[in-house]
Amino acid sequence: MVLELKVPAGIGAADLCALWPIFLSYILSFIYIGIYWNNHHHLFQAAKHVSGSVLWANLHLLFWLSLVPFVTAWSGETQFKEVPVAAYGVVLMMAGVAYYILVRALIATHGEKSNLAIAIGSDEKGRISVVFYALAIGLAFVHTALACALYIVVACIWLIPDRRIEKVLFKPDAH
Amino acid sequence: MVLELKVPAGIGAADLCALWPIFLSYILSFIYIGIYWNNHHHLFQAAKHVSGSVLWANLHLLFWLSLVPFVTAWSGETQFKEVPVAAYGVVLMMAGVAYYILVRALIATHGEKSNLAIAIGSDEKGRISVVFYALAIGLAFVHTALACALYIVVACIWLIPDRRIEKVLFKPDAH
Amino acid sequence: MVLELKVPAGIGAADLCALWPIFLSYILSFIYIGIYWNNHHHLFQAAKHVSGSVLWANLHLLFWLSLVPFVTAWSGETQFKEVPVAAYGVVLMMAGVAYYILVRALIATHGEKSNLAIAIGSDEKGRISVVFYALAIGLAFVHTALACALYIVVACIWLIPDRRIEKVLFKPDAH
Amino acid sequence: MVLELKVPAGIGAADLCALWPIFLSYILSFIYIGIYWNNHHHLFQAAKHVSGSVLWANLHLLFWLSLVPFVTAWSGETQFKEVPVAAYGVVLMMAGVAYYILVRALIATHGEKSNLAIAIGSDEKGRISVVFYALAIGLAFVHTALACALYIVVACIWLIPDRRIEKVLFKPDAH
Repeated sequence: MVLELKVPAGIGAADLCALWPIFLSYILSFIYIGIYWNNHHHLFQAAKHVSGSVLWANLHLLFWLSLVPFVTAWSGETQFKEVPVAAYGVVLMMAGVAYYILVRALIATHGEKSNLAIAIGSDEKGRISVVFYALAIGLAFVHTALACALYIVVACIWLIPDRRIEKVLFKPDAH
Repeated sequence: MVLELKVPAGIGAADLCALWPIFLSYILSFIYIGIYWNNHHHLFQAAKHVSGSVLWANLHLLFWLSLVPFVTAWSGETQFKEVPVAAYGVVLMMAGVAYYILVRALIATHGEKSNLAIAIGSDEKGRISVVFYALAIGLAFVHTALACALYIVVACIWLIPDRRIEKVLFKPDAH
Repeated sequence: MVLELKVPAGIGAADLCALWPIFLSYILSFIYIGIYWNNHHHLFQAAKHVSGSVLWANLHLLFWLSLVPFVTAWSGETQFKEVPVAAYGVVLMMAGVAYYILVRALIATHGEKSNLAIAIGSDEKGRISVVFYALAIGLAFVHTALACALYIVVACIWLIPDRRIEKVLFKPDAH
Repeated sequence: MVLELKVPAGIGAADLCALWPIFLSYILSFIYIGIYWNNHHHLFQAAKHVSGSVLWANLHLLFWLSLVPFVTAWSGETQFKEVPVAAYGVVLMMAGVAYYILVRALIATHGEKSNLAIAIGSDEKGRISVVFYALAIGLAFVHTALACALYIVVACIWLIPDRRIEKVLFKPDAH
């Protein structure tokens, strides 16, 4: 896990509590990284071929995810100021777009009639979350709490792992 | 391994010795991470299915383990003050709870009659250690040495890998 | 991913924009690491044996790649001064040489008539890029923009994954 | 790779050259970590069972290896002063002892007549290097250059991967 937490300056409970924005952004980002990790796991468990375009789409996703610790720390350390919170949304939105591209690349490799394509279905969650991120980026300049609320909403949408994929994949010998 | 050690300020043996609280917390946390790593290894070696709930329970465990370096560094750098030592206990206790949830999620996926469930048995060590951590958190405000002693006791309880699981799993072709 | 980004000093968009040289070097290095990662993946997918010399050649490549974050940060933080940009080229050139040695070690282990050797072919891209890096190192002292342009050109040459290897490897059961 | 290199303070070649002790300790430690990585790879490729004691012996080795970046940075940043260079030797010696224990644990699990035990043989290199490290720790207080020279000698002894293991393991289907 690439997220980092700096040791508080003091020794008391107040020093720990003063870090609440840092912790909040840490938890949110941990959940987001976890969502991608789990969905990624499900996706590649369903995948039979890994072509060059899939590798690149995967790397593109990793690029945006690699920026998450940066915008997380910036948002937390500035106590959720407008630009950092909007930057957080941009990184999440681009990661969402990258995930969508990865899904398309995998379907292109496996064919529209493949089990993978059927298991993924319409990928509505992917589309909705990108719209929500775009909305949150704009709302960050109205009130950052609105943007943060939307980030939490999207996290909740994704927290439920994709039962469709799981149902198709679930085999007694799967690891 | 996510634990970090900073280079001493000076060049002498005294500068190295001045780091003893840092080293002590480092060693203790290394052992704890190692215990989780080994038991986790045994647990997933026994697992046949990985469902969505297992993935999330695993991520929840990782969340608390990811906080270990933070409370380790804070405890060491403050030379074991009350709040850092109690915070250390909170993180360990929550990791213990998360491990317990993970075990339950795995048993739920495999069934109460499965080899995995039989191999795990009653998981008494898991319950005892959570009680000990709770006790240590309270004792940290009486005397931090008492809390640290309890952390070492729990580590010793866990140091012996679960022979029951190992006995069931041990096959010549296992890696 | 070993590359790191430091949080901006301020809270505004200007503070973020002031980091452009850091971002530029970050993106370029991310692409380079990604290229090596993808090509490495293709190469070892084609490999049947891993001998001692292959392990060492691989470690030699890792050594130079491990220096990429160092020269990336130095180039970015100094806003692309001559020596850092030349040092960046030296590390990339040596990584290119190390990759070439790794390819030779793999071919030596598999034989000149093996599928791996046929799939790799003449490895022209490897030779050309080393020449380009050497050129860029010299040009860094004329104008650093010329060197950076060459680094981008080499990245573009490599961005297309090696279709020859992919064609030979592509099997429905490959992961 | 856990070793870290800090960006030079200036922009010139002199600033880079001033880092020579840092680079030297970095290269030496990279080679040592590489030696352990390669030999570890060979060892576990030959292993058929992984028992609880093997897991703990492995973790014990990881503990000492995890201290390598610490003593590396301290040696480099202090330009090879007595205590840091001796501390470097202590960590290497303990890693050597830990590797020896791991080898013994693996042989105990597989039996004295197993292919693994035959492939490992007398493990003379392991014993010699521990003696050399002990010697180097003492010599660090006479002249640090003598200790560093011994560290390089031991690295050279190990650089040749264990042909005996490789010979036994080398199968066309090995990966």
